[in-house]
Amino acid sequence: MKRFFPILDWSRDYTRDTLSQDLVAALIVTIMLIPQSLAYALLAGLPAQVGLYASIAPLVIYAIFGSSRALAVGPVAVASLMTAAAIGDLAAQGTPEYLGAAIALAFLSGLMLLAMGFLRLGFLANFLSHPVISGFITASGIIIAAAQLKHILGINAGGHNLYELAISIWQHLPEINLPTLAIGIFATGFLFWARKGLKPFLLGRGLRPKLADILARTGPVAAVALTTLVTFAFGLDTQGVNVVGQVPAGLPVPTLPPLDFQLWLKIATPALLIAVIGYVETISVASTLAAKRRQRVDPDQELIALGAANIGSAMSGGFPVTGGFSRSVVNFDAGAQTPAAGAYTAVGIAFATLFLTPALFYLPNATLAGTIIVAVLSLIDLGALKRTWRYSKSDFAAMAVTILVTLGFGVEMGVISGVTLSIFLHLYRTSKPHFAIVGQVPGTEHFRNIKRHEVQISPAIFSIRIDESLYFPNARFLEDTVYAAVANDTQIKHVILVAPAINFIDASALESLEAINHRLKDAGVQLHMSEVKGPVMDRLKRSDLLDDLTGEVFLTQFDAVCKLDPDCANKAMHGKRQA
Amino acid sequence: MKRFFPILDWSRDYTRDTLSQDLVAALIVTIMLIPQSLAYALLAGLPAQVGLYASIAPLVIYAIFGSSRALAVGPVAVASLMTAAAIGDLAAQGTPEYLGAAIALAFLSGLMLLAMGFLRLGFLANFLSHPVISGFITASGIIIAAAQLKHILGINAGGHNLYELAISIWQHLPEINLPTLAIGIFATGFLFWARKGLKPFLLGRGLRPKLADILARTGPVAAVALTTLVTFAFGLDTQGVNVVGQVPAGLPVPTLPPLDFQLWLKIATPALLIAVIGYVETISVASTLAAKRRQRVDPDQELIALGAANIGSAMSGGFPVTGGFSRSVVNFDAGAQTPAAGAYTAVGIAFATLFLTPALFYLPNATLAGTIIVAVLSLIDLGALKRTWRYSKSDFAAMAVTILVTLGFGVEMGVISGVTLSIFLHLYRTSKPHFAIVGQVPGTEHFRNIKRHEVQISPAIFSIRIDESLYFPNARFLEDTVYAAVANDTQIKHVILVAPAINFIDASALESLEAINHRLKDAGVQLHMSEVKGPVMDRLKRSDLLDDLTGEVFLTQFDAVCKLDPDCANKAMHGKRQA
Repeated sequence: MKRFFPILDWSRDYTRDTLSQDLVAALIVTIMLIPQSLAYALLAGLPAQVGLYASIAPLVIYAIFGSSRALAVGPVAVASLMTAAAIGDLAAQGTPEYLGAAIALAFLSGLMLLAMGFLRLGFLANFLSHPVISGFITASGIIIAAAQLKHILGINAGGHNLYELAISIWQHLPEINLPTLAIGIFATGFLFWARKGLKPFLLGRGLRPKLADILARTGPVAAVALTTLVTFAFGLDTQGVNVVGQVPAGLPVPTLPPLDFQLWLKIATPALLIAVIGYVETISVASTLAAKRRQRVDPDQELIALGAANIGSAMSGGFPVTGGFSRSVVNFDAGAQTPAAGAYTAVGIAFATLFLTPALFYLPNATLAGTIIVAVLSLIDLGALKRTWRYSKSDFAAMAVTILVTLGFGVEMGVISGVTLSIFLHLYRTSKPHFAIVGQVPGTEHFRNIKRHEVQISPAIFSIRIDESLYFPNARFLEDTVYAAVANDTQIKHVILVAPAINFIDASALESLEAINHRLKDAGVQLHMSEVKGPVMDRLKRSDLLDDLTGEVFLTQFDAVCKLDPDCANKAMHGKRQA
Repeated sequence: MKRFFPILDWSRDYTRDTLSQDLVAALIVTIMLIPQSLAYALLAGLPAQVGLYASIAPLVIYAIFGSSRALAVGPVAVASLMTAAAIGDLAAQGTPEYLGAAIALAFLSGLMLLAMGFLRLGFLANFLSHPVISGFITASGIIIAAAQLKHILGINAGGHNLYELAISIWQHLPEINLPTLAIGIFATGFLFWARKGLKPFLLGRGLRPKLADILARTGPVAAVALTTLVTFAFGLDTQGVNVVGQVPAGLPVPTLPPLDFQLWLKIATPALLIAVIGYVETISVASTLAAKRRQRVDPDQELIALGAANIGSAMSGGFPVTGGFSRSVVNFDAGAQTPAAGAYTAVGIAFATLFLTPALFYLPNATLAGTIIVAVLSLIDLGALKRTWRYSKSDFAAMAVTILVTLGFGVEMGVISGVTLSIFLHLYRTSKPHFAIVGQVPGTEHFRNIKRHEVQISPAIFSIRIDESLYFPNARFLEDTVYAAVANDTQIKHVILVAPAINFIDASALESLEAINHRLKDAGVQLHMSEVKGPVMDRLKRSDLLDDLTGEVFLTQFDAVCKLDPDCANKAMHGKRQA
């Protein structure tokens, strides 16, 4: 039971002290989350209240199922961008179909995460290599920031990749709205300064550090309040400043996702990508925070918790949610001890949907755009390109392709190209495994690479050590290498495959070994093996190779050479006497 | 020069003796190839003469560029089936568009092979694991045999997978033509018997073994001649027996493939599959035969030779060609010494197109269908399913999926599913590498798996040995394993990564190591490494890991433990005294 309901674990030790710590954290996260929820709904092309809805039910559900003590789930920038990209071509923004598609996307992502959790398919997330994720998030951050420019400029522009956006912004540039631009520049500038400068400023005014810390996090709320008031006071909404407008008050009502099979088929790929990328972000934030307090997160349970949270989001009219990085760090730093802090945050957001929505009418979209721009700037990590270039050219290639394709062709193509390329490069690397032709170190029973050591070899014996498991990407390589050696040197009468580093031989490699055995037989050469690991040997016994083998399987390479070249023992003795 | 023109290599030593051996081999292959060429053209849905055209220019071109001494190229069953599947939906059989599409397919396949050869991308063929190829060829054989039933029954039926074929044959069953059925059953039965029984029969009649051997190979020609005569004599073509009919006499004329970009886009995927599968068949036949005589084939040069042969086929009005298995074995057994035998075969086929085509008018399609059925039966290897099941369940899964999808959804889907599944299973396997927690064998400097040996460990030190390179599929696994250990045992103060089996650390795994380092630091635990290989260390020096590492990098695990637990030397001494 505790495996599936971690709440049963931590709720027993819940004290008054834990409660007060969780409540403080919840308050701070609530203040941070209100403008973020609105902003990410805007980014996804959805009505503002949808962002608030996605910050209520999912948080309560994560508190029940989540195994991380400090993770804060909710709408995040990258998933919101991916939502907009996935459904932008299916329906027009503002229509019930568009909202329905967003809800269906959250529902399907949630189902996929749940299925992956129950089937223990969390390893699928491994296929997203780090350079691909890092490149993808950087490129998404750039696209998101660029997409906000239209709100700052007060123009109508659109597009899901950088090229479309740039063209569209350029075309609409004459429509620029100056009051909007003023608000946008002020909000962005203030938030940018507040991120680093507000806390020292407040401390300088003599505030207590604890209070300064809390107030510093209210920067976004301050920007929202200030620009809303200005817009209201000067009636800027009648002068072309786009505002959030009427937001229906009240808690979300239970919703069913549209049961449209055609729609589900169309959003299946983006739903999977949102699920996997959201999971990767969640699990990496959760494990970072858990390790700091020497706690554990259960990767499979996180799949279930995140899946349930997304289904909860869909069924309360919300859109895809994820464990957010900055939000979780704030929650952790503010002292959250248990996932209950998330549930208290949900209460705070619910309160906002009940009573604060009228106050949002005059909130300018430009302010929300500023919030987003400042938030995503921390996602853009161009230094990673340099670091990766220095460390590994092939990883750099995967990262660069992911960034370029994401910028040029959109988020889905970007991720898919990056994953495909990194798998391809990985297979290419394993297709040419390291190998060594080995000879006997004089006076010992050791065998070493003839290129690196002074060793003795018998001209009739060709001993090759492969430092990699044998499987289909490198099976033919082994054949080519052995045939080349035997064709070039007619003295060879014995080939010994030295196998201490081979952990696995798959059916393709088995077939190659059988082919090598038969073909060498036709050429009058025997094939032997030495130092085969136990599990590999067990498996080979279930094949015909050992029966057909023209040579023998030796326990050690020394045994093999001694049997095939009686002179070897003398060499070893000779060496020993010398030594 | 010799690298790209192997002909320069072997033609210098060309003697009268080699010539006579090559001529005999060419004669036998020509006799075998005439009915096969016609039959495979029929299978691809093309006019009979196209099969002959594809057996002239490609053979001459392969003789110039090929590195195998005995390979015989030309139309083969699987590539013909794939051709029919690729272009069947693009144009109606018998139209110039259909022929144009087949020519374009050969041209594009040839270009792709040439490009792979010059870019040394032959390793791409490795991604087709053996179970996938074997399953694909078995399933293709079943589909080809089933598709011939309509010719044997004399009905109109079609379909690119087993299901469509079965339905179509069932629907058209009432139209069955009895004279056709009689010819079809006779031809198939005779050829089936001739394959094994004709040579002993001729030997029993007192023929010399050499002559019997040659005559035994003329079974298909005998079947063709006999059924053609019967059809002519009894005027069966007027009684519903479909015959080859008018075949234009004369050599092929230079042809340009249709320069239709839309068409090329549509056939790009099948062209790639035909190229890769044809190459795999070619290279495995070529290396088998070369190894028997201790000769070499150059895998990259084979790509170039096969590519040039396909372009040659296209430019002389032919369709995709490949190195055929049975044909090459016959060529080899008949004593072909050089690729010149292929050029002489081309002369034989050219002679046939000039003078023999009128004789083919009354050749029944049912006879050709019988030729194909008997030829492809040898491709079907259901025993491989059993062998693979016994050896490896995951390879069996890849093979079974390839067979089922090929039978159910056609050749392209079959190959793509098989390749995807085998790459997926491979990554899954590497995502959970073998690892061991190691301790000191008392009285020695050796460290072994604590599960398998009686070893001593210090409670503050956690030493983990990973028996696999670290890359993105298993990067997170390492993190999870280390965090789990450290979270469960608060005594641990040092984690040592024992790395003698790690050949490579990619950027994802580097990131994981950095994350482990930082997170352990927060938990008050130091991270160390021991026995890091030279190339891995060189690469790590280009990253920030070594600077940030909370612990040290030790040359040996013994050094590491001795530094961190001063008691270790005593343990070793103590053990030694005891021993």
